[in-house]
Amino acid sequence: MAERPNYMSPEDFRGAGHRAVDWVAGYHERIEEFPVLSEVAPGWVRSQLPAEPPEQGEDFADVLADLDRIVVPGLTHWQAPGFFGYFPANASGPAALGDLVSSGLGAVGLLWLTSPAVAELEQHMLDWLVSALELPERYRGNGVIQNSASSATLCAALAARERAGGIDALAELVAYTSEQAHSSVVKGLRIIGIPAERVRAIATTPDFAMRADHLAYEIVKDRSDGLTPFFVAATVGTTSTTAIDPVAEVGWVANNFEAWMHVDAAFAGSAAVCPEMRWLNDGLDTADSYVFNPHKWLLTNFDCSALYLADPRHLINAMSITPEYLRNEASDSGEVVDYRDWEIPLGRRFRALKLWFVMRHYGLEGLRSHIRRHVAWAAELTDWVAADDRFELVTPTVVSLVCFRHIDGDDATQRVLDAVNQSGQAFLTHTNLDDKLVIRVAIGSPQTERHHVEELWNLVQSAA
Amino acid sequence: MAERPNYMSPEDFRGAGHRAVDWVAGYHERIEEFPVLSEVAPGWVRSQLPAEPPEQGEDFADVLADLDRIVVPGLTHWQAPGFFGYFPANASGPAALGDLVSSGLGAVGLLWLTSPAVAELEQHMLDWLVSALELPERYRGNGVIQNSASSATLCAALAARERAGGIDALAELVAYTSEQAHSSVVKGLRIIGIPAERVRAIATTPDFAMRADHLAYEIVKDRSDGLTPFFVAATVGTTSTTAIDPVAEVGWVANNFEAWMHVDAAFAGSAAVCPEMRWLNDGLDTADSYVFNPHKWLLTNFDCSALYLADPRHLINAMSITPEYLRNEASDSGEVVDYRDWEIPLGRRFRALKLWFVMRHYGLEGLRSHIRRHVAWAAELTDWVAADDRFELVTPTVVSLVCFRHIDGDDATQRVLDAVNQSGQAFLTHTNLDDKLVIRVAIGSPQTERHHVEELWNLVQSAA
Repeated sequence: MAERPNYMSPEDFRGAGHRAVDWVAGYHERIEEFPVLSEVAPGWVRSQLPAEPPEQGEDFADVLADLDRIVVPGLTHWQAPGFFGYFPANASGPAALGDLVSSGLGAVGLLWLTSPAVAELEQHMLDWLVSALELPERYRGNGVIQNSASSATLCAALAARERAGGIDALAELVAYTSEQAHSSVVKGLRIIGIPAERVRAIATTPDFAMRADHLAYEIVKDRSDGLTPFFVAATVGTTSTTAIDPVAEVGWVANNFEAWMHVDAAFAGSAAVCPEMRWLNDGLDTADSYVFNPHKWLLTNFDCSALYLADPRHLINAMSITPEYLRNEASDSGEVVDYRDWEIPLGRRFRALKLWFVMRHYGLEGLRSHIRRHVAWAAELTDWVAADDRFELVTPTVVSLVCFRHIDGDDATQRVLDAVNQSGQAFLTHTNLDDKLVIRVAIGSPQTERHHVEELWNLVQSAA
Repeated sequence: MAERPNYMSPEDFRGAGHRAVDWVAGYHERIEEFPVLSEVAPGWVRSQLPAEPPEQGEDFADVLADLDRIVVPGLTHWQAPGFFGYFPANASGPAALGDLVSSGLGAVGLLWLTSPAVAELEQHMLDWLVSALELPERYRGNGVIQNSASSATLCAALAARERAGGIDALAELVAYTSEQAHSSVVKGLRIIGIPAERVRAIATTPDFAMRADHLAYEIVKDRSDGLTPFFVAATVGTTSTTAIDPVAEVGWVANNFEAWMHVDAAFAGSAAVCPEMRWLNDGLDTADSYVFNPHKWLLTNFDCSALYLADPRHLINAMSITPEYLRNEASDSGEVVDYRDWEIPLGRRFRALKLWFVMRHYGLEGLRSHIRRHVAWAAELTDWVAADDRFELVTPTVVSLVCFRHIDGDDATQRVLDAVNQSGQAFLTHTNLDDKLVIRVAIGSPQTERHHVEELWNLVQSAA
């Protein structure tokens, strides 16, 4: 008989778990000591690791020590108060602990039967979000957690493909999105068999919002060419500038031509938790599917992307295959939700726990003030930029992303960007608009306080 | 200025975190008190939850209390020692704590730059697994963590589609797998645009292994019909019975006809950590891609599916789109790995941490004895079944899944199954083979001890 491995007992887990929790707490206490952008060279992290796995088990304390020695220097600190790059990816204590409980339970939610609580808490939390954000009522009961907006958009496109005739119709299908849409739209469409040549990049206004008239023009043209317009992806808060597509107009066009209307509000959508930002939902009643990411700006650790479908049957029809070993009475009854047919993976983690922990810890009031801080500071920063002759704002600030450039052109802008990033105190990323380099300042981390935004602005000014 | 929400400070996180760790430890101490299969009725969990999210934040203690009141009764306890259903989904202390640190760091690894440690530790851990399992050397440096074998197989098929001419070739592409393959093969192919009519279900031997001669016959037939055989998915350890396809023969056929060879060893693959089980890798040198799930039988919590590609360029070409806001010097240099082009989601969690924690805590010796216990007990249970006239074994026991039925037929078999599952002490699932109902006993939980297998057998005997 083989000997018993050194399984970690509940008692040992208590001890190691407390130390791991303390390590995480300590990391957050020290986070401002590290350069925000990792300074290691390619290959450095690997060079610190043994080439081969250990034969014998090691002490947990040694593993924790190596976190400090090897991992921390190799991190770009997304949770640092000076992280203003890309979009934020909020981590929070309650969400991390929701994930810890999920890991500890180790329940896999492929079917309702394989853990009713996994399925039902997920459905319920997505309904709580319908209430919290005042989303269209027809989304109630029809939400699912996906790992990312990329996957959610792929699923929406797949449901659209199913409604438009399935694989048989593939060669005639055409999709539409704006030239400012996220790369995941083209990626998802490519995966399901729509080449880039049949994805129309609709022109945008000077504020980078999709032009509904151009959309209508392209759709009419494609239909007269014998093609089938099947999918329109609008964006509420584009990645480059948080431009807001006119969802009502775009949706009216999509609905009238029987194309699936998908809305990607990955970053900006969370702001609708504030009544004064509910205009972000304008036109959503036209949308067959809607995605936003609580894992970006709603204090719920990655991954937690919320996808809603007005009618989930198209997605389920596209996904569903039931071999004998997955059949069971509850599923056959049709009374329960089996989320395996709502996404690509079969198995799924208990991700609703972290949403539950977050909404209960902060309450809607807490979530609203979280958003309001960033919106207010972005407005302040916008004013500061506007008042400085050396810089120009590139777009109006819509939620909490500020886009600007140096008036002397790309080289000067690049120098500012490099100086800020090399300071170690803050991290900014860029985009390119009308062939000009643009600095993006995305405000949205729970660690960021107003003085961090001021310090960033001082850094930018010194560099200019 | 908006007021500051009640962010959980590092100090508060310490307190709440210790309580969450203790709750998880306590759950594991009590796990045998609960019926393995949840007994709640559809809708019960939701009926216990408030219809609307709270306006004000609540105490963390109340949330933990509701775990016991609402969540635990709604769980099917995958980590219980009496869970013998589906395949195991090993959770372990070190893996849960690796995930906790990942949640605490909140680093998002879309690009190397966005956290070099996320990319490099992942690449390194997958290389450790190449060593641990003695996988083909050409997989070294070419591994990626996916969320599931379903997604991994989809990515493999997508890479194969790319190599075979991409979307333009779609209408001529034909795929092959055995009639015993997992439903995810057909699902993944359907998603990328290959309808079920162009997925050939190759016949199997009496032991349910793919017949390479039938595969060759079907490929030749399709080619003479002007179609393009582009993808062959073999299985090492099928879901119904852990049948082992003859990978060397199947791969020889696939290689000769220039079809992509994919091997799915989702469950059984982990056993190759033991030298005496390395035969599971036979023929892998023919495989363009290989997937196995440390999250099933290697003590690494879901999700952690390891995908290897002999040449990752096809997958990267299929996935890669680089908008301006993701461009950076490190990526442009080609010196680093950007995992966003290796899977569907753009963002990714730091999942390599849990693999690192697990391999260091247990060492290879610990992982081997973990596997050996289950293989030994499955052999014992097989002998007990063979010695009992009322039952018949349906297939040879290959790794740690035992398949048998009552000799009186389906009704008698169903009664045994129902009696065991209603006992609350154990949970079994079924399959259907040659139109007959079959009981599956999947042994593989770290909590299971030999006496639990004996008790299960006593339950089965009493029910017969």
